[in-house]
Amino acid sequence: MRKPRLMTPGPAMVPEDVLLELARPVIHHRSDEAKQVIVEVSEGLKEVFQTQNDVMILTASGTGAMEAAIVNTVPPGGKALVLNAGHFAARWGSIAKAFGINVVTIDTEWGQTVDPEKVAEALRQHPDTVAVFGTLSETSTGTGHPIEAVAKVVAQTPAIFVVDGISGVGAMECRTDEWGIDVLCAGSQKALMLPPGLAFITVSTKGWAKIDAFESHSYYFNLKAARSKAKEFDTPYTPAHTLILALRTALRRIREEGMENVWKRHTRMSEACQAGVQALGLELFSAKPAEGLTAFRVPEGFKDSQIRNKMAERFGVTTVGGQGKIKGKIVRIGHMGYTDELDVISALAALEMTLAELGFDVEPGKGVTAAQQVLIGQRAAANVG
Amino acid sequence: MRKPRLMTPGPAMVPEDVLLELARPVIHHRSDEAKQVIVEVSEGLKEVFQTQNDVMILTASGTGAMEAAIVNTVPPGGKALVLNAGHFAARWGSIAKAFGINVVTIDTEWGQTVDPEKVAEALRQHPDTVAVFGTLSETSTGTGHPIEAVAKVVAQTPAIFVVDGISGVGAMECRTDEWGIDVLCAGSQKALMLPPGLAFITVSTKGWAKIDAFESHSYYFNLKAARSKAKEFDTPYTPAHTLILALRTALRRIREEGMENVWKRHTRMSEACQAGVQALGLELFSAKPAEGLTAFRVPEGFKDSQIRNKMAERFGVTTVGGQGKIKGKIVRIGHMGYTDELDVISALAALEMTLAELGFDVEPGKGVTAAQQVLIGQRAAANVG
Repeated sequence: MRKPRLMTPGPAMVPEDVLLELARPVIHHRSDEAKQVIVEVSEGLKEVFQTQNDVMILTASGTGAMEAAIVNTVPPGGKALVLNAGHFAARWGSIAKAFGINVVTIDTEWGQTVDPEKVAEALRQHPDTVAVFGTLSETSTGTGHPIEAVAKVVAQTPAIFVVDGISGVGAMECRTDEWGIDVLCAGSQKALMLPPGLAFITVSTKGWAKIDAFESHSYYFNLKAARSKAKEFDTPYTPAHTLILALRTALRRIREEGMENVWKRHTRMSEACQAGVQALGLELFSAKPAEGLTAFRVPEGFKDSQIRNKMAERFGVTTVGGQGKIKGKIVRIGHMGYTDELDVISALAALEMTLAELGFDVEPGKGVTAAQQVLIGQRAAANVG
Repeated sequence: MRKPRLMTPGPAMVPEDVLLELARPVIHHRSDEAKQVIVEVSEGLKEVFQTQNDVMILTASGTGAMEAAIVNTVPPGGKALVLNAGHFAARWGSIAKAFGINVVTIDTEWGQTVDPEKVAEALRQHPDTVAVFGTLSETSTGTGHPIEAVAKVVAQTPAIFVVDGISGVGAMECRTDEWGIDVLCAGSQKALMLPPGLAFITVSTKGWAKIDAFESHSYYFNLKAARSKAKEFDTPYTPAHTLILALRTALRRIREEGMENVWKRHTRMSEACQAGVQALGLELFSAKPAEGLTAFRVPEGFKDSQIRNKMAERFGVTTVGGQGKIKGKIVRIGHMGYTDELDVISALAALEMTLAELGFDVEPGKGVTAAQQVLIGQRAAANVG
């Protein structure tokens, strides 16, 4: 018997009480009962997003929220500045191009963080930029970007700052209003502890001004329609309302733990995982790991699939490899949402036993011990970057 | 105690074994296990859609599939002919206009069926029409349109025929390939016996030629991307894969019952419901009721909310009222998907007891008796239209 441990950076594990909500008989989505659920989750989402503005619910994956963020803010022919530092940041550019938007890119080496000074420079060179598109947690590289610092830069210009928080929101500190993020997107299947199917988006006053400035060629993802319905705790089209019902339970869990505590738990898990991986002689991929996942380089002479398949088959621990140009070069361990410290320990134990069985020169127990030392405060977090 | 009976034309009730699939631990969406689920549901969807072509799965509500059907087939400035005979048919026009498409409309009185001869005439007048947009089952009026006949007309022209089958597919006869439907859309929360969150779309060879003729301004709903991923039993972006897992169980149920038998069950439920409603002295709204729902006019002197609220509060039977310009004028009873003959009998019993309590001149038992007579073949179906 192997218990399934889904240690991927989305989808992440879902608590049993949330899953059971999904097994309840379906109610009508326009009933008072369904509306009351939206009333409650709207409050909870504001807490998670750290905003006073409405958080709109879309029935789509995170990419749908990204499309909504683009097509509603930048008119065709308008200029978008994309902070390209990974597979998902690149998607900002792909979506924008599909909609006839003029894309300017700041390329950052994968695994490195975006430099706010370069953003300032690009905005000076392109004063007609309508929106800057960045990433809180780049899932493909496991990197946390300096969103607060970039937001400060963008705030001094007429441009708005749009952030993909899909694998970041709920796993790492992100203060939408305080930092001055204008548009923030998230998905249900990461730190929000649900299966995939819902996406979320919130917009600042500065952001709404861009949206109200033109008629977007959009219908399903029209944010003006979503805004007016959100005011009535409703959605323009049939929502995946059983997922919204389950979201209520997930948000109650977050409220009970407390947002700051949730962030701290993710920081602890992240630091412990980094320490464990490094104690095994493995190299972290990212200069600044995001709190929701840990990416390490596949050691010379091994294949990522060897490691990942053995972890899955022998120990039930599911991880993912690299995407795009780093396919085969890294392994990513997710630790977001419904994941606790002992899940991280378990993943590290599975990793070190797997490496030992594969003949990698490693001393089983060393990674786990290093992680435990971080968790009980006997050792500082891994020195990264 | 009142058992909940969701007799709305979507969402419809979901079988217990399908709900329990949703309570299972989440697996990774790019795993072999997840792919095998798509392999199986792809076959099942072809059977339900009666097509040899791939049925693509979108994570969205039905409106998302409608948007996909429009933006991928008709370029901005291209001409679309919309067969406007209800609230949802009108949505075809709204989406097309949002994307800069030139919309020509054939207006049909709500509750009446589209006249294929008028479609032929319009296509003669507008030979540059790229696509004709129709509706299999117009949910807002409860009308089944003559899709086979319209498809024959459109097939003789260069235009393609795009059909909203959201509340029709799986509830009423619809032979995509045989009839010559070029694009057919459906949603998960109707006769497919799932909660909302998935949409489906299939495209004919003639349809793909339109799609391949230009670069659509779309990303999330780009059907070329969906097509190439569907060939690998995959999706371009994270799908709501727990719903796809549940779909497998729903499709196994349909396969076991047999598609033709599923259609026949819906026809029987529809005829029985019509007979029951008419036996109570109520007037059907539609000249040609769709098999998945029955709409009747609210009797003079009553409010639809009076009737519907009492049915819900006293008996647990949820129905819906009218939409758009017939709001307050009709009541709609859904009987699609996971609904059986005795559910229809129960809804009619609740309706007649409700009407009696409200003081409407009705003899309780008369509606139920008439429905039973249809079900055991002692009475011909209600004479409609």
